[in-house]
Amino acid sequence: MNKNNRKWIENAAGRKVPSEVNGHPVIPYQGIGKYLPKGRKYGPPIPSCKDFPADGNKQVVSLKEALIKSGLHDGMTISTHHHFRNGDFLANMIFDIAHELGIKNLRWFPSASFPCHEHLIPYLEDGTIHHIEGSMNGPLGRFTSEGKMKGIGVLRSHGGRYQAVQDGEVHIDIAVIGAGKADPFGNANGLEGPSATGLLGFALADSQYADKVIVVTDHMVPFPCVPWQIQGNYVDYTVEIEKLGDPEKIISGTTRITRSPDRLYLAELTAQFCDATGIIHDGFSFQTGAGGTSLAVSDYFARIMRKKGIKARFARGGSNKYLVSMLEEGMIEYILDGQTFDLEGIRSMAENPHHTWTSPFTSYNYHSKGNFAGMVDVVILGATEVDLDFNANVVTHSDGYLLHGIGGWQNCLFSKTVILPVPLFRDRIPIIVDQVTTLCGPGELIDVVVTERGIAVNPRRKDLLGKARQAGLPLKTMAELKDMADSICGIPDKPEFEDQPVAVIKWVDGTVIDTVRKIKTG
Amino acid sequence: MNKNNRKWIENAAGRKVPSEVNGHPVIPYQGIGKYLPKGRKYGPPIPSCKDFPADGNKQVVSLKEALIKSGLHDGMTISTHHHFRNGDFLANMIFDIAHELGIKNLRWFPSASFPCHEHLIPYLEDGTIHHIEGSMNGPLGRFTSEGKMKGIGVLRSHGGRYQAVQDGEVHIDIAVIGAGKADPFGNANGLEGPSATGLLGFALADSQYADKVIVVTDHMVPFPCVPWQIQGNYVDYTVEIEKLGDPEKIISGTTRITRSPDRLYLAELTAQFCDATGIIHDGFSFQTGAGGTSLAVSDYFARIMRKKGIKARFARGGSNKYLVSMLEEGMIEYILDGQTFDLEGIRSMAENPHHTWTSPFTSYNYHSKGNFAGMVDVVILGATEVDLDFNANVVTHSDGYLLHGIGGWQNCLFSKTVILPVPLFRDRIPIIVDQVTTLCGPGELIDVVVTERGIAVNPRRKDLLGKARQAGLPLKTMAELKDMADSICGIPDKPEFEDQPVAVIKWVDGTVIDTVRKIKTG
Repeated sequence: MNKNNRKWIENAAGRKVPSEVNGHPVIPYQGIGKYLPKGRKYGPPIPSCKDFPADGNKQVVSLKEALIKSGLHDGMTISTHHHFRNGDFLANMIFDIAHELGIKNLRWFPSASFPCHEHLIPYLEDGTIHHIEGSMNGPLGRFTSEGKMKGIGVLRSHGGRYQAVQDGEVHIDIAVIGAGKADPFGNANGLEGPSATGLLGFALADSQYADKVIVVTDHMVPFPCVPWQIQGNYVDYTVEIEKLGDPEKIISGTTRITRSPDRLYLAELTAQFCDATGIIHDGFSFQTGAGGTSLAVSDYFARIMRKKGIKARFARGGSNKYLVSMLEEGMIEYILDGQTFDLEGIRSMAENPHHTWTSPFTSYNYHSKGNFAGMVDVVILGATEVDLDFNANVVTHSDGYLLHGIGGWQNCLFSKTVILPVPLFRDRIPIIVDQVTTLCGPGELIDVVVTERGIAVNPRRKDLLGKARQAGLPLKTMAELKDMADSICGIPDKPEFEDQPVAVIKWVDGTVIDTVRKIKTG
Repeated sequence: MNKNNRKWIENAAGRKVPSEVNGHPVIPYQGIGKYLPKGRKYGPPIPSCKDFPADGNKQVVSLKEALIKSGLHDGMTISTHHHFRNGDFLANMIFDIAHELGIKNLRWFPSASFPCHEHLIPYLEDGTIHHIEGSMNGPLGRFTSEGKMKGIGVLRSHGGRYQAVQDGEVHIDIAVIGAGKADPFGNANGLEGPSATGLLGFALADSQYADKVIVVTDHMVPFPCVPWQIQGNYVDYTVEIEKLGDPEKIISGTTRITRSPDRLYLAELTAQFCDATGIIHDGFSFQTGAGGTSLAVSDYFARIMRKKGIKARFARGGSNKYLVSMLEEGMIEYILDGQTFDLEGIRSMAENPHHTWTSPFTSYNYHSKGNFAGMVDVVILGATEVDLDFNANVVTHSDGYLLHGIGGWQNCLFSKTVILPVPLFRDRIPIIVDQVTTLCGPGELIDVVVTERGIAVNPRRKDLLGKARQAGLPLKTMAELKDMADSICGIPDKPEFEDQPVAVIKWVDGTVIDTVRKIKTG
């Protein structure tokens, strides 16, 4: 993209987005449910069994050999998944090899990146990697925000990533899929082995649509590797290596409820709200995350359910020991799991048929004949900022730095009720602002903001407002909440940006909802 | 197709095939592994969640409403699966509705048809159905062989059917998928309910690639229907009806080993051969069918394995109580199941994670990055005829009538050793012939023919010949076997055919390997 010819377009949310990104034209966000996808799903080249080993053994001696056989060359798109989280060795290995081979201008397409991928910064600097499409957490986010990446980053939700691959918006040349357990044919799962991750769903689209697919494991078993979360029929090469990652950083040995009294209060108030408004009812469904506050919400939900003798039909989302104990106690009929956050989650998933695998396809893909997100009664999410119109930000902090990915956050906004329990301020920076630094989720999809000083209900949800008022819950308007925060913290200076886009934020339908610009430094 | 302009092409097997079928050009069979697929997999239109109910409830009141909403009109292709076997009510219902609505020229694309579908003959006569692509068993086969179908039938293997849909060779307008259990979103399985079938794998391609997908059940449960063999994300409409089929005819209450001493001897000799040639070894794999002789082979295998303390790594194929008892006894580590033949199979599949679902995609699709068939050490198959070059026929009888489908038969020919235990004659008609009436499987893929008068080993398999000779097994050449049969039965009259093709036989790669012609009657 010639930076001098850059055009800015204002999208339906009033946000300016570049007319093109990395040489590809941008479709600006058009409003919720307004963009009509055209065309057909991507059709990968038709393979033939005649080109694969008759006995099904696709194992080669090293990752390097697999990459070379897959035709690794300049300008390719290489995809990885983030089930190894901050314990991932594999993504770093791939680009070590690419660098060694003198390959340039790769596009890295991870489902998310973590601080451990700081290792890749030299490759972003020397042109091995041109740019990243995927969340840029921590050091990579800082690097990007400072305008140091050669291309423009593209952030997508989990569902948006599946959509982009399915629709042919992102063509993956080589997918490298690390798996806790695999067979030489390429069947693979994350349920066992020293690098077990529980699921491998974030690599599903990659396996289905990439030109070449490499499965890498540190626990190779004879065919058949059962169950197959990744199907060997999509796989070109398999590799056994010594160690995929650091188990302690892949999976928390334990997840833990927040001990902060403020956060516990937020969680309790959230649960009270759900109880008073009838959201918690027999056969209801919910999704909470694995953060300390979210775990506390689950715990308060459990207390209410136990007291009232209520069962949930299902809980969606990343599993953890709290959800697992609710499942085992019979308070939840099914866990529909998208990623496993602790060892209890893996154990339960491996042994309990009611602890069901899901994928970004089943749960989140917006270019599908429906998905699971809309069937969830209530979802509890976080945010870095929320504005007076309930618009929310999850990717940048108020200092303007890109520090988080979108994850499933945007996709979950389609649930029946969306609640953001957020503190009024963090480190004396108010969370509620006039206008979010980066728009990730339109306010019309966000129903409730719960703070320690009161609950704001989106005026669109008159039903919830009425019930909450009747129950005597501490209702406030967003303006009132903002005033309280401002009076405590003062209004902080806004970060200053240059005109240069460093990343764009995709909406769930592939349109661009906002732009992250280069931080003005010094 | 203008019948006067019909051209015949001789394919690589020396068989004449029409230049076009139902208006589409034919690719003649080019030899095993010789045809190179071009192009890309079929990409269905990209859907959007915005066009589906926000709460995921896609249920409509009747099959008729679902078909009308799916845009049923003249000339469409309607697909069904055959998991209900001879107990299927659903396929008949669909065409009753089409007839009632005055729709014409439909292409019916079942994964197989059964005698119960004789109900559809009036619709083939009155033009509601133009032609069938799928196996034409029993009455429909006879109807076809007599040249009464308006179009030309197309027979494909299970793997070939997946390939044809995946490659866009067959475009399905509406897939109607009956399921033992489903939820209103469209998640479905065959494991429970009054019309349980075990698997639904024969409908997998249909769900993934059809324009419109309707799931019909007689056991609707609240979301989520777990496990989902069919994913609701592919489904447009769901319907609950009173009864999908006749449970007694869907699944045998019991499968039974042959009691015929001749057939038992065939089975025993087959097992002896596998033992003597080292095919039965620790960690081996096998596939036998659910016919009486095949079941007996499994049983003899079990005796040998028990005696030698040998375990099989896996057994492929339709499950039945004999395989299930071997699994439960620990003699087989995994059953990789393609269809469930009896109630024990369903029970085991529902409760035992080592009783694993497969599909035509995993097991049989030739246009894939390998499939399971090649990994099976030995497969035991049937045939209606075998010729001196080991070429075999499974679709027509020696009287020239089309009476069977191909099933997974062609796909299984890629296993490491293929054995056909066949009687020397049936009803005084020799099975071994100079040239098969219809070529379904090239002799170069068929390794051994076991008869009650001796075993013929394909000269290509010198390894097996040597070991069998050493073990003193009763080896014969095909010519010797044929002479014995002919001397007992005499050489029967060959059926006479007209020049008119009534059906073509596809090879696993979508090319046409042979033609079935109209029987000369009267």
